[in-house]
Amino acid sequence: MSKEVTVEQLLAKAEEPSKDAMRLHPFYKGKIMVLPKCRIRDFNDFAIWYTPGVASPCKEIHKDIDKAYELTNKGNFVAVISDGTRVLGLGDIGPEAGLPVMEGKSLLYKYLGGVDAFPLMLDTKDTKEIIQTVKILQPTFGGVNLEDISHPKCFEILDTLREECRIPIWHDDQQGTALVTVAGLINALKIVKKDIKDVKVALIGAGAANIAIARLIISAGVTAGNIIQVDSKGILHKDREDRETLKEKYKEKWYICQTTNAKGITGDIPDAMKDADVLISASKPGPGVIKKEWVESMADDAIVFAEANPIPEIWPWEAKEAGARIVATGRSDFPNQVNNSLGFPGIFRGTLDVRAKKITDEMCIEAAKELAKVAEDKGITEDYIVPNMDQWEVFPREAVKVGTKAIQQGVARLDLPEEERYKMAEQTIKNAREEVQMLMKEQFIIDPDK
Amino acid sequence: MSKEVTVEQLLAKAEEPSKDAMRLHPFYKGKIMVLPKCRIRDFNDFAIWYTPGVASPCKEIHKDIDKAYELTNKGNFVAVISDGTRVLGLGDIGPEAGLPVMEGKSLLYKYLGGVDAFPLMLDTKDTKEIIQTVKILQPTFGGVNLEDISHPKCFEILDTLREECRIPIWHDDQQGTALVTVAGLINALKIVKKDIKDVKVALIGAGAANIAIARLIISAGVTAGNIIQVDSKGILHKDREDRETLKEKYKEKWYICQTTNAKGITGDIPDAMKDADVLISASKPGPGVIKKEWVESMADDAIVFAEANPIPEIWPWEAKEAGARIVATGRSDFPNQVNNSLGFPGIFRGTLDVRAKKITDEMCIEAAKELAKVAEDKGITEDYIVPNMDQWEVFPREAVKVGTKAIQQGVARLDLPEEERYKMAEQTIKNAREEVQMLMKEQFIIDPDK
Repeated sequence: MSKEVTVEQLLAKAEEPSKDAMRLHPFYKGKIMVLPKCRIRDFNDFAIWYTPGVASPCKEIHKDIDKAYELTNKGNFVAVISDGTRVLGLGDIGPEAGLPVMEGKSLLYKYLGGVDAFPLMLDTKDTKEIIQTVKILQPTFGGVNLEDISHPKCFEILDTLREECRIPIWHDDQQGTALVTVAGLINALKIVKKDIKDVKVALIGAGAANIAIARLIISAGVTAGNIIQVDSKGILHKDREDRETLKEKYKEKWYICQTTNAKGITGDIPDAMKDADVLISASKPGPGVIKKEWVESMADDAIVFAEANPIPEIWPWEAKEAGARIVATGRSDFPNQVNNSLGFPGIFRGTLDVRAKKITDEMCIEAAKELAKVAEDKGITEDYIVPNMDQWEVFPREAVKVGTKAIQQGVARLDLPEEERYKMAEQTIKNAREEVQMLMKEQFIIDPDK
Repeated sequence: MSKEVTVEQLLAKAEEPSKDAMRLHPFYKGKIMVLPKCRIRDFNDFAIWYTPGVASPCKEIHKDIDKAYELTNKGNFVAVISDGTRVLGLGDIGPEAGLPVMEGKSLLYKYLGGVDAFPLMLDTKDTKEIIQTVKILQPTFGGVNLEDISHPKCFEILDTLREECRIPIWHDDQQGTALVTVAGLINALKIVKKDIKDVKVALIGAGAANIAIARLIISAGVTAGNIIQVDSKGILHKDREDRETLKEKYKEKWYICQTTNAKGITGDIPDAMKDADVLISASKPGPGVIKKEWVESMADDAIVFAEANPIPEIWPWEAKEAGARIVATGRSDFPNQVNNSLGFPGIFRGTLDVRAKKITDEMCIEAAKELAKVAEDKGITEDYIVPNMDQWEVFPREAVKVGTKAIQQGVARLDLPEEERYKMAEQTIKNAREEVQMLMKEQFIIDPDK
């Protein structure tokens, strides 16, 4: 990794796709479309797919609501739902302006996971209205992916919906980021040969991602008391001056105050990082948010996740100079990219293939473990703790493990053997990719550069 | 037309597609899917379609919300929304059980109109919640097709949403049926050489379709006072015994009581039909709902629309024997099928192509006139007053006229010349069909009978 790279160069590099985006978005006018997936030989077939023939499947589902999974596409439909209040790093830009992101997410769902995802932008910012709308929309979908909803309301929305819905609800900014971070953590700890239950973890930032990461790394084996989390006002602990506000408005943070930081450490980022084995920062774009000397104060063989985009909280080479043995960021042009796209397509492929009623934290951990294993099977190193995006086998492998856990936990509506599910997932994803490639080859998707 | 056909034979014939439907719906597990419509050369392209590149189109839309029509698929997305309370002739079977119909409708939208329609089944029957949900869902869509919502609430839902939404709202059971009926009426009157403003019209039934038909035939030129409409309690007039209930709960019927039936005729179906030039029945399945002798009492060269499914209110041959010169039904195996599918794909193609804010009754009349003209251009006869489903030119032709009217009325966001819009519509629809045919040819859509 070269020290020669500057902030300007990296920002410029992050800007390159933007130029293409502004040229290609108006060219295609949208990134996804709807197409029939059944035979249409001539207009007589409409009598099968529409009235009068369609009455029969309707009556079947009326008798047994679960038949919707057999007779419609419900079992492969996922809604990508956002109110546009926290889109990428752009903040509250509104639902229309968030649509390009949710269309892009839907594209990734199909291309990586074979999932028919559809973007739904909500024209409300109200927590209760968002919850009610998602509940009302359940009948069409096999699952819901919440996205880019501001915090703290995103916690209440996710928790309420996970509790009250009959289909799985996922908030990718929380759970997706946590999943991939846990996968990276598992492999990083293998390399430094530390036991997950003994490591001290400093979490910098207490937004959607890091609140979920706290919960999920505990599920994965980190001892809660060994976690020190920091928000904009300092380290979270039981005696914070703003504890009444936390109790009332930021329940998730207050829960962290009560359950982590067993020694009651106070102070700020440097105090949290002192002697820490692992740093997971999901705060604000750097560099300079995390200082070199703070990394120097960490334990030997320190592991650093600096996940802010577009520039990590600390330069990877600075962290290394300061003694970090493994450094991960959110960027694809540095080693060890923590990339949500490695998680959600596989999670939902597996969830849908067993028609699960929910996505439990345990299913999420299974996905993280399998994601880690895909990298391990290829051979992990300090610069390779998570798979790359072109290792397509990631998705069916995650899917199978997620489905198996759902079956074990009794949240699946369908029980099929692992081999069968692997074949299904692989075929579904393969078809999605080949369909797109064929549309390109046959000039239905035109390449403006050719 | 053979008199030999019996109710049993016709019902059996209507059952044939049902058998295929129950074989093929589980085979395909859904009738529509989502696919990328932009190039994906490899995983590096995700940086254009998703983060970081996607931030640029987001920012553009944030500055100018109408840019969503340029930078996303909003301009071609239509939501097909239903609460499942009046699905086909099956009644309130619930939202999941209505999904096969709405998926089928979405399939027709794409295949006939090139429209990316997506089914959304709502888990509520409450009028206010339905209205609120549709309003909240506006940002993603270029328009909304309401479907199979029970009456009378469907009237309030449509009227409120047409008033309060910034995208066009359409209720196909009302407006779609009315559109195609008006087209048939226009051509039928040409054949019998009667002036639309002079004809006496008996409307049998006062559900979603016939209430909308009353409004639209008046817009098309029928003199309101010449309409006699009948509901289950008899002819609608100002002095009905249940007028207080009508005022309070059935405003649309009460409006008809006040504006039609200038002579204040009372009684039931036979009284409404006496001397009528036109009968439009959208009531309950026959035969025998409309009696031969009532048709005999109609004016010379009587025109009969018997639209109930699966069996019309009177056999076409009986109506003819009783003196009707032209008979239309809802069935494809009799001449003159009044088929909604001739309307909605063209209406929405034209509406979307000019990014219209609403679909006015005048736009609807233009579609009806052009639909009539497509048949007239081929040569209308007593047995051919509306085009058949395989006359694909229907849809771009309707689209162009609908768009032109929208531009004239100032409800369009985009003004393009007719020739350009015709080419666009034709190409969009052609692509949709050819994409499906290619998926079949390349075995992505498998034919289980081959």
